[in-house]
Amino acid sequence: MEKLVYLDNAATTYPKPAIVYEKMDYVNRYLCFNVGRGSYKGARESADIVDETRKLLAELVKTEKPQYVVFSPSATIAFNVIVNGLEWDISKNVFVSPFEHNAVLRPLYSIAQKNGARLFELPFNKESFEFDAKAAKLLFEEHKPDYVFITHVSNVTGYILPVKEIAELARKYGAVVILDAAQSLGFVEVDLMELGVDIAVFAGHKNLYGPLGVGGFIINSCSNIDGVLKDAIFGGTGSDSLNLEMPRDLPGKFEAGSPNIVAIAGLNAALKWLKENIEEIRSKKKKLTLELVGELKNLGVKLYIPSDLESHIGIISMNVEGFRPEEVSLVLDRRFNIATRAGYHCAALVHRFLGTVEFGGTLRISLGYFNEKREIEYFIESLKSIVF
Amino acid sequence: MEKLVYLDNAATTYPKPAIVYEKMDYVNRYLCFNVGRGSYKGARESADIVDETRKLLAELVKTEKPQYVVFSPSATIAFNVIVNGLEWDISKNVFVSPFEHNAVLRPLYSIAQKNGARLFELPFNKESFEFDAKAAKLLFEEHKPDYVFITHVSNVTGYILPVKEIAELARKYGAVVILDAAQSLGFVEVDLMELGVDIAVFAGHKNLYGPLGVGGFIINSCSNIDGVLKDAIFGGTGSDSLNLEMPRDLPGKFEAGSPNIVAIAGLNAALKWLKENIEEIRSKKKKLTLELVGELKNLGVKLYIPSDLESHIGIISMNVEGFRPEEVSLVLDRRFNIATRAGYHCAALVHRFLGTVEFGGTLRISLGYFNEKREIEYFIESLKSIVF
Repeated sequence: MEKLVYLDNAATTYPKPAIVYEKMDYVNRYLCFNVGRGSYKGARESADIVDETRKLLAELVKTEKPQYVVFSPSATIAFNVIVNGLEWDISKNVFVSPFEHNAVLRPLYSIAQKNGARLFELPFNKESFEFDAKAAKLLFEEHKPDYVFITHVSNVTGYILPVKEIAELARKYGAVVILDAAQSLGFVEVDLMELGVDIAVFAGHKNLYGPLGVGGFIINSCSNIDGVLKDAIFGGTGSDSLNLEMPRDLPGKFEAGSPNIVAIAGLNAALKWLKENIEEIRSKKKKLTLELVGELKNLGVKLYIPSDLESHIGIISMNVEGFRPEEVSLVLDRRFNIATRAGYHCAALVHRFLGTVEFGGTLRISLGYFNEKREIEYFIESLKSIVF
Repeated sequence: MEKLVYLDNAATTYPKPAIVYEKMDYVNRYLCFNVGRGSYKGARESADIVDETRKLLAELVKTEKPQYVVFSPSATIAFNVIVNGLEWDISKNVFVSPFEHNAVLRPLYSIAQKNGARLFELPFNKESFEFDAKAAKLLFEEHKPDYVFITHVSNVTGYILPVKEIAELARKYGAVVILDAAQSLGFVEVDLMELGVDIAVFAGHKNLYGPLGVGGFIINSCSNIDGVLKDAIFGGTGSDSLNLEMPRDLPGKFEAGSPNIVAIAGLNAALKWLKENIEEIRSKKKKLTLELVGELKNLGVKLYIPSDLESHIGIISMNVEGFRPEEVSLVLDRRFNIATRAGYHCAALVHRFLGTVEFGGTLRISLGYFNEKREIEYFIESLKSIVF
């Protein structure tokens, strides 16, 4: 194909809706002021965009308090803020799923090492990917969980984790539950109350179809984590400037530095587009996923997806016997102009879980709303011509 | 005036050169991939833009090692990375100038409090703003400096600090010197070797005329700070993904999360434009500054600028007897469509130094390359009509 076939949407969705590009360019040219730091008209208009975007996000996760929506430059920074904002000492037990991204694992590993806290892996069945609640309960009995970090959708396998079930169990032991919604928010329902999580972290540039440069976290207004979480990134806030400490109120407490109004405006446009089209986006992606899985199952390649396809969406990891994933990815790029990703996908634990360390990880195909059925067919034909 | 007269360039320069908007929109639409995480053509092209931007920045500060240029989402994040990456304990003495921004002061204050380290203010003459080297030497003798943080150009007063002199003295006592070049890089010469600083922090969206969403720091390749500074923000790097620790090499060690390729591309265009026009930009800004200072001196308002106008550029803080700065700023906006800024400008210490705490700070006028002489005249006329 002349045109790029983009199957790396888990890295960043591409393209974005045209309205996102248009809004960003407009705000860049006409409203790119320092929000909350000037009292002139343009700065106030920029501030209105930020406020409205908080409201749109709050609505998406069904919370009524937009001030509980905290913007960060990325989901990675958001996790660093949260992890550093929690209390740490030698008594602390942290649980993570084997599906976590390094944006969660690396800050946790560093701080656990430093403080002598202990990191545990939540138990999942290696064949079906099912959560082993019984084994988890035994673990929790033995090591009372303080913090539980769960990804909502695995960035390697597309597995939708049973967040509600895990959170419910963890809360029984008094744990704080933090959700990585980077791959889910937008096309999987994220209702903070219903899921029972204290905080959800989001990335603007993935399934929200917004731009790079904005992510953040949303605090469940019914959680008491708000009072517990210390500020962890310090700097100017445009408020209370004579004070060497950060302001105490949300969201200012966690938002240091000039807000990226251009990225936030892009996210604003994306969220409005999403709201209009959410049902269609979800059903199209589900359909494309099922088609792709079906075709790949016919080919007999090794797929790393959960047994229950109801718990799977958008992302497929695979390997073909006799081929390294990076070889396949390279030929798909060079000969067929298909963008996929090979390797470990910034997820340190999942490859031991999947048994893919020795293969150099997996070949990952990830779908977006703008993919078409004929692109999947073209990918399958191309793959066949390489490996058979 | 119908058209906005923008005199808040110290917050963020506005507008940017048209090429910056164009490049950002282009990359957003056609090259917005996850740099370093995919091996397909688009991702490689994006990576080339990042590499070239590092080279342009390295060239600007006259270092030969582009890998010593670290990108962060903002100067604020860069300072948090640096401050958290240094060693801290009860023995540490940190010196700051009274002109520092809260992006420096707040992270330092937090970490000093936590570790029992001591924060000192470097001595400057309150009338002339001159650095008091003699008093500083006495202070250094008594409290051996470990870290010295100096802003290059004060974001409140436009004072260009004698960085070389301060750094030379501090280095005699073995201190690490960190330069806040957020307000200087671009229009004041920043030669890391010549200035004798270990690290310089930059903001893409100020005098580099790039966009929001990209800042960072540049390590002096002759400094040994590189080996000392620990990683402080953790996450995915697209490399060595099975490792729970960050990679050891520069710049990857300090760059976690998806790079903001759109912002970096905008900065890339800005740096090329800057390189072409740097002499004209500097001389125009100097000229405008002198004109503005001259006019304001004629009006007899209180100016907070250094005695030696050779050490002053672009930013003027002022107050008018009988008026609160926010009143003047508000009327300038509402009645004359002039954007200025009133208050404390995210600088906690300088208002005690200037004696402006009780006034509610200052009215700040800050110039950019795109300001014109007639805008200054219009501002002066407007100001006169308000206060006389």
